[in-house]
Parts: sequence; structure tokens; C-alpha cells
Amino acid sequence: MSFYDSTVPAYLQILGSLSGLLSKAEAYCEAKKIAPEVLLGARLYPDMLPLSKQIQLACDFAAKGCARLSHSEVPSTPDTETSFAELRQRLAKTVDYLKTFTPAQFEGADSRDVTFPAAAGATMTLKGQEFVNRVSFPNFYFHAAIAHGILRHHGVEIGKRDFLGVA
Amino acid sequence: MSFYDSTVPAYLQILGSLSGLLSKAEAYCEAKKIAPEVLLGARLYPDMLPLSKQIQLACDFAAKGCARLSHSEVPSTPDTETSFAELRQRLAKTVDYLKTFTPAQFEGADSRDVTFPAAAGATMTLKGQEFVNRVSFPNFYFHAAIAHGILRHHGVEIGKRDFLGVA
Repeated sequence: MSFYDSTVPAYLQILGSLSGLLSKAEAYCEAKKIAPEVLLGARLYPDMLPLSKQIQLACDFAAKGCARLSHSEVPSTPDTETSFAELRQRLAKTVDYLKTFTPAQFEGADSRDVTFPAAAGATMTLKGQEFVNRVSFPNFYFHAAIAHGILRHHGVEIGKRDFLGVA
Repeated sequence: MSFYDSTVPAYLQILGSLSGLLSKAEAYCEAKKIAPEVLLGARLYPDMLPLSKQIQLACDFAAKGCARLSHSEVPSTPDTETSFAELRQRLAKTVDYLKTFTPAQFEGADSRDVTFPAAAGATMTLKGQEFVNRVSFPNFYFHAAIAHGILRHHGVEIGKRDFLGVA
């Protein structure tokens, strides 16, 4: 196996499960006559980001992470989604983008420098594997799990198996 | 770099940051005169697990994950912690345990079979890398991020940088 095997499939697993979470959230809104924007704008605390932004950030950390690791052009995707369907499209496009990467592009990337934006306009450089361990995975899984937590907190009937993508 | 580099340091990063989150939570309880057990028992929804169990599960997914990957004896740790200090000790012991593993023990483990308990008393077998991508990391990060979400939701002044361990 390879560095590719330890990154791209891991992102894909959770991007797929997030799409399923959104479908259950949408069905919940329909069943309970909740306006979708209520759930899309729901937060765990007033100064935390809402559900829609958690999904957008999970997409970004996956897409930009793979781009940085492979020294490809880093994609910029405006956050324009305002519905469950549009967020699922964003996830699907991210999945399609990740699937364009090949194991060859990740060959040696674990020990190659990755430079990325840090706080206050500065940049930071880490080796690829450290970038994954300390930046990309923790951020990616954080936003995905917080999206799940927002939905659970608002009563959507999902469980950890939905997050794992085995439900 | 190696399969060891893509697993053990990733767990250690977040185990360390969880300890910091608990210290801030404890200080918050003291400042606000909140009984620690209120926060330790806090949940995002009545049928979700409380903070203390989220920490215990994060420890277990890290420790058991490394044991399974290296075909070591899987440790069993009773969930007896009832204070912030005891949970930090649990985290510290998990860190110490993870530090006993060597890269040699993980050599080839990415493509070796890992058998682990699945739903309803069954077992499941995956190659080591798939086990990490589909089971161990998603579960580990999930419980860690939900612990963070519980604390944020209850007003503890932490941010994502605390979760990443860069605060």
C-alpha cells in the first residue's frame, strides 16, 4: 500500500457518509415541516459555524489537502450552497475531484514539503505526512463530526454508523 | 516514512489536545461554580454519550487500534473515571501505551488482516490500512470532535485550535 492509500480513500469514506447524513436531514425537515434553512443554519453555539459551512469546510479540507500533498493547483470553491441538494452536489464534486488523483501523484509526498496558509496571513511548512496528521485529517474529521453533532443535537435520527458510512 | 508514521503520531496529536480541552473545561467549571460532574455528564442529545464516555472511547479507539494493527494483545481498560483529573490520567496512560509501539511493529501492517468486533457479536476483517481509514480513524476523531462539540455547546471558551493542539 502507499501514501495515496492512507489519504484519498479516507477522505472519500467520510465525504460519502456526509451525503447520506444530509439526505436523512432533508427527510427529517420534510417529515417535521421544518424549513431546510433552519437546519442548514443550525449551530452548536452562537459563535460556531452552521451546518452548511461545516460541510463546505470538510469538502475544502479534503480537496485542498489532496491538492497540496500532490503539489497540484489548489482549487478555490465559493461557498454558494443554500440547500441540501446543493450541498450534496458540492460533496459529489469533491468526490469526483479526489478521484482524479492517482497513487503516482502521492508517491514520496509523505516526506515532501507542504506549504499552507496559517493564522494571520502567515504560511507554514510541514512534511506531507505531518501535514496530514496535524492539519488536514484533524480539520477534515472535525468539521464532518461537528456536522453530525449539529444534526443529532437537532433531533435528526442518525447514529455513528451513519457517520462511518456503514448504516 | 512508514505506516507507523501515518497512525501513531496522528492519535498522539489529538490525545494531547484532548487533555488540554479538559483542563480548560475544568477551569471553566471552577470559574462558573459548575459542579464538574455536570460537564462530565453533558451530552448533545439525550441518547448520545456524555463527555466522559467520549474521552474514554477516543482513548480506546487509539489504544485498541494500535494493538490490533500490530497484532499485540488488545488492552481492556475499565471506564472508571469520574473527574477531569482522572480522565487526563486515562489520556496520559493511553499516550504512554501508544509510545511503546515501534515502527518495526507496524511494518507491513497496512496490508495485514485485522479482525475486530463488529455489530451483534460478529467480527469483521479488513486489511490494516482499510481498518484505519474506515474504522479506527473515523471513530477516534468522531469521539474527540464530539467531546469538543459538547464543551463548546456548554460554553467552554475553546476553539478549533485547541482541538488541533496548536492553541
